[in-house]
Amino acid sequence: MTLDLQKYSVRTDLAVESRELAETIHGGPLPGVQEQVEEQDGIKITRLDVLDEAASAKLGRIKGHYITIEVPGLRGQDSELQDKVAEAFAKEFSSFLNKLGIARGAKALIVGLGNWNVTPDALGPLVVENVLITRHYFELTPDRVSPGYRPVSAIAPGVMGITGIESSEVVQGIAERTKPDLIIAIDALASRSLERINTTIQIADIGIHPGSGIGNKRRGLTREILGVPCIAIGVPTVCYASTIVNNVFDMMKTHFDQEQDDGQQVQTKQILGLLTELSESERLGLVKEVLEPLGHDLIVTPKEIDEFIEDIANVIANGLNLALHEAVNQDNISAYTH
Amino acid sequence: MTLDLQKYSVRTDLAVESRELAETIHGGPLPGVQEQVEEQDGIKITRLDVLDEAASAKLGRIKGHYITIEVPGLRGQDSELQDKVAEAFAKEFSSFLNKLGIARGAKALIVGLGNWNVTPDALGPLVVENVLITRHYFELTPDRVSPGYRPVSAIAPGVMGITGIESSEVVQGIAERTKPDLIIAIDALASRSLERINTTIQIADIGIHPGSGIGNKRRGLTREILGVPCIAIGVPTVCYASTIVNNVFDMMKTHFDQEQDDGQQVQTKQILGLLTELSESERLGLVKEVLEPLGHDLIVTPKEIDEFIEDIANVIANGLNLALHEAVNQDNISAYTH
Amino acid sequence: MTLDLQKYSVRTDLAVESRELAETIHGGPLPGVQEQVEEQDGIKITRLDVLDEAASAKLGRIKGHYITIEVPGLRGQDSELQDKVAEAFAKEFSSFLNKLGIARGAKALIVGLGNWNVTPDALGPLVVENVLITRHYFELTPDRVSPGYRPVSAIAPGVMGITGIESSEVVQGIAERTKPDLIIAIDALASRSLERINTTIQIADIGIHPGSGIGNKRRGLTREILGVPCIAIGVPTVCYASTIVNNVFDMMKTHFDQEQDDGQQVQTKQILGLLTELSESERLGLVKEVLEPLGHDLIVTPKEIDEFIEDIANVIANGLNLALHEAVNQDNISAYTH
Amino acid sequence: MTLDLQKYSVRTDLAVESRELAETIHGGPLPGVQEQVEEQDGIKITRLDVLDEAASAKLGRIKGHYITIEVPGLRGQDSELQDKVAEAFAKEFSSFLNKLGIARGAKALIVGLGNWNVTPDALGPLVVENVLITRHYFELTPDRVSPGYRPVSAIAPGVMGITGIESSEVVQGIAERTKPDLIIAIDALASRSLERINTTIQIADIGIHPGSGIGNKRRGLTREILGVPCIAIGVPTVCYASTIVNNVFDMMKTHFDQEQDDGQQVQTKQILGLLTELSESERLGLVKEVLEPLGHDLIVTPKEIDEFIEDIANVIANGLNLALHEAVNQDNISAYTH
Repeated sequence: MTLDLQKYSVRTDLAVESRELAETIHGGPLPGVQEQVEEQDGIKITRLDVLDEAASAKLGRIKGHYITIEVPGLRGQDSELQDKVAEAFAKEFSSFLNKLGIARGAKALIVGLGNWNVTPDALGPLVVENVLITRHYFELTPDRVSPGYRPVSAIAPGVMGITGIESSEVVQGIAERTKPDLIIAIDALASRSLERINTTIQIADIGIHPGSGIGNKRRGLTREILGVPCIAIGVPTVCYASTIVNNVFDMMKTHFDQEQDDGQQVQTKQILGLLTELSESERLGLVKEVLEPLGHDLIVTPKEIDEFIEDIANVIANGLNLALHEAVNQDNISAYTH
Repeated sequence: MTLDLQKYSVRTDLAVESRELAETIHGGPLPGVQEQVEEQDGIKITRLDVLDEAASAKLGRIKGHYITIEVPGLRGQDSELQDKVAEAFAKEFSSFLNKLGIARGAKALIVGLGNWNVTPDALGPLVVENVLITRHYFELTPDRVSPGYRPVSAIAPGVMGITGIESSEVVQGIAERTKPDLIIAIDALASRSLERINTTIQIADIGIHPGSGIGNKRRGLTREILGVPCIAIGVPTVCYASTIVNNVFDMMKTHFDQEQDDGQQVQTKQILGLLTELSESERLGLVKEVLEPLGHDLIVTPKEIDEFIEDIANVIANGLNLALHEAVNQDNISAYTH
Repeated sequence: MTLDLQKYSVRTDLAVESRELAETIHGGPLPGVQEQVEEQDGIKITRLDVLDEAASAKLGRIKGHYITIEVPGLRGQDSELQDKVAEAFAKEFSSFLNKLGIARGAKALIVGLGNWNVTPDALGPLVVENVLITRHYFELTPDRVSPGYRPVSAIAPGVMGITGIESSEVVQGIAERTKPDLIIAIDALASRSLERINTTIQIADIGIHPGSGIGNKRRGLTREILGVPCIAIGVPTVCYASTIVNNVFDMMKTHFDQEQDDGQQVQTKQILGLLTELSESERLGLVKEVLEPLGHDLIVTPKEIDEFIEDIANVIANGLNLALHEAVNQDNISAYTH
Repeated sequence: MTLDLQKYSVRTDLAVESRELAETIHGGPLPGVQEQVEEQDGIKITRLDVLDEAASAKLGRIKGHYITIEVPGLRGQDSELQDKVAEAFAKEFSSFLNKLGIARGAKALIVGLGNWNVTPDALGPLVVENVLITRHYFELTPDRVSPGYRPVSAIAPGVMGITGIESSEVVQGIAERTKPDLIIAIDALASRSLERINTTIQIADIGIHPGSGIGNKRRGLTREILGVPCIAIGVPTVCYASTIVNNVFDMMKTHFDQEQDDGQQVQTKQILGLLTELSESERLGLVKEVLEPLGHDLIVTPKEIDEFIEDIANVIANGLNLALHEAVNQDNISAYTH
């Protein structure tokens, strides 16, 4: 069944979406996958662990730990909610570092992947512009650094069309010279779900793998390549026209199934035809088959992307500043971001 | 039948789309609507005239002249093609001015509607930044203006969220003081067709009407309000998630109908169910019914909108410079835009 | 003596600088000029009133009330100090409105003069982007506006090179249609003093006069023209190379005079020659005489202008939000600016 | 005498300025310094070679080859002149590469030094955004690259305040991984001469040395460090207030000396005092002594810096594209820059 996933490439960068898909296909919870969900104040946190290779194969996701923060309200541009999400992010990120056994003062290199000239792909570079940078103080005047900070550096390596160099090569080169203990890579993602666009943050200890994110990465950023742990932070900001269609079809199916439960007489199958009997990935394959030859399987982003990308970049930058430096807290945080 | 159009608001700002829709509903060409199509070098030009009130009612469009320039290749960021489109635009725009009886030296005020902070809505303001402005030379040093120019001024009135003032009020105030002979209003539009996004330019002599364009205009910019002819130039840059779904459904229907013609046995209706029997607007109503309560009927734009909006704004600015000033031609045009 | 001022055009837009100059020339305090100075926490506030036409003539400034807020520390990019300055500005601005007899709920139109494409001239447009806009709520849903707000609208009319229209014409047109009770015009200024660049805010009830500010205004924004009070807010962001030279010469003179007082033998005149015997304006005339033919009397701005202009625009926007709306206070202010 | 230069740090990044200074001090041409000057169409090209260590010591400049392109008209924003300068730049750059024995297809890494958030320091990053990048085509699809191109990559390493990493470390890391044959580093410079700001381009084969450019580099980019030739391209975009003053004093001295030659009776020394008898560096020391304690020795840039920096970045990017790729010529050049 994993074949289908590859054949029609129901591509998602979100582990929670992979789990949903896999459970539909397998008809129930997967062994080797542990999930814990928590919800408060409109913020839903899912901690999902893929424990062994068997689970990894079924899920189509690399073994590792995944945290997903879902906040449907984030689209509402509510600055109070954004502060709460930054705090929740910081708390999760801190305990994630603990869980991975990363030391308190571990030197971090933050990598902002993506293209600053393409708004929905500019998340990484924008976070880099807003995180608190301290490494140079530790290098130049180590005895004058106040306690409560750790060395943090950051780079936005750009995309191949701008630099001619794979971003992973840029990061490797810099990591070899500056020897960070930890790499944190931020990237904009594609989602297969309309509702998760601009509302979800994923943290994972699996690094960045070829083909993930919006741009066309050919090489990854992983512990194997970089020699140090690499944590990936991602936010879905785009989706394919075809996934929207597929997604809506699902919603329609659920909608009509419900109406039938409510005693109404229309048969979902009557309305939606054979489409109801196809698996999600088969259906997506069908939609793509129609759209692609016409060049209409556009990658789209919500009209409000400019404001959203600024807001979410600030949430992540604030969250990272809170998590990485004990001296930063909610009272002084605003002095550190732009 | 016009009722349906309103009920499910198959909203489009493009006359060619209205005509397509209306013909589907009415089952054939409409009396009182004249259309002439010309195609060359990948540029398709449709000149559509709505001649009387009866036609206007059936079409759901105001009486007037509409020119549509469709260039599927525009998404390809080909600078040579862009130059050709600018020239074609200029040619059409010039003969449009002639047709409307607008004098050669008529003073023009170019109005760039939309919000410069929202990329897909920034078309108007970007055109304003790139057109050749000459009015102040005519005012301050009239005897030193070379022949071949006319007085052109321009304003981007902003949107209500930024100014607190309706853009039409701003334009009216300025027009009353500066007395232009002609107003040219540029606005980003919503499309009901995925394929027309970022590939189509519409010119019309009907001005701007409440509810048109991306922003929520409450008052229009028309000859009645402004006292002088008002020509609208629009480019669709966004569409609703629901229209994408509906649009793709149409393509699927056509696709399967074709396969049947090719002798294949599957019945379109078997696959797509009752959806095939609904009218386009009924179907769109259905999709919206499902999406809206979930807050998922997002307005979306292609991921590449940043680069596209710059390119198309340049095409229009160059086209206007060529059309409005005889002294500007393909050899010196690049000196006038940024 | 006023002749000299005109002849060599020691141009300044700051009343405190005019007073300094005038007193040097006249050898002491001027009758008809009242000045009150207050200083706290590194913020110096000067309230200067030009009471009659005689004083106006001697000072070379229009009759009216001038408040100058000088904060040398503002160049240090200290966000706490910026908050304090915003508060001080709000307090002064509020009592200024009271003094002028402007009612609590008076409808305000904020005008951001200047060119958004020229960083040191972008102050006005940046303030406009950051003030709280409310007029449209009062127009569209008056019964749903919470108490503590007044109708505020805003416009950045652009400069003649971009629009082809005098900014005063744009503002007049809008004011005639929207009928504000009060116009607040923000503009970047030229200073004759290096030390006041980016550290000084001036508030005055005299409006904007031709020739003031950075751009070349030919018509003003005054009560006479607009029919309602017009308060001008200005910040010096540029100065001429020639004024820097002249300014430094002054500092050198003071420096050597002091050394002589300290018992050192060098004679200021020996070092600086006849330059010491010229009046400031004669000296400036001399410097200009040398620089101008070479095209080297550049207008310059500090290298850090990008960051400064953002900071000071935020200070003014925050200050205006605090002063104009009782519902805005230091606790919720950050929610209103970007 | 070199001591004086260091003591009062008459800092300049331009070799032609060093030569002028050194000749003033040494009273004539220096042995070991070869200079060739050519002037056409308002473009003055100086080819200056520092041949031995003795000359290097006297000049205060590293042994090497320097080309200076001076174009006073560049401030006038004349796009035709800009094209001519790009062509002249390309011609000089090409013969420079030949002279240095760099092979035709040598792989180039273009490094854009400086801070993209500080307009006068954004030259390097802006050039990087506008040069033609080809390395990835050679890496991914080498057999499909047309003849007439060479592999070019580019990076803007940012400044320490943004990344926490020295730009030289970033470049070293990338160079080690991507193995270019040649590094071309672009940087904004400080000038000691008002007239050279925004009008001069310097090309030199000496790389970037600590302390050069606008930002505070602590480590250089040189052949020794990088293992391959490093060519530096620089444009002065800022100067100190103190150098302006000093500069103007020089002009005044020349001015009055001329008037005396014209038979006028005023004695330069009478007017300018002892200042006339100080060496340039002593005088500058004096001015700094006065300005610095007051915090007024600002680094300034012309008000029009935004437009200028865009223009000159385009000139250099176009020039590099012409020089590095035979397939690029004046007819197709505009397709390669933005």
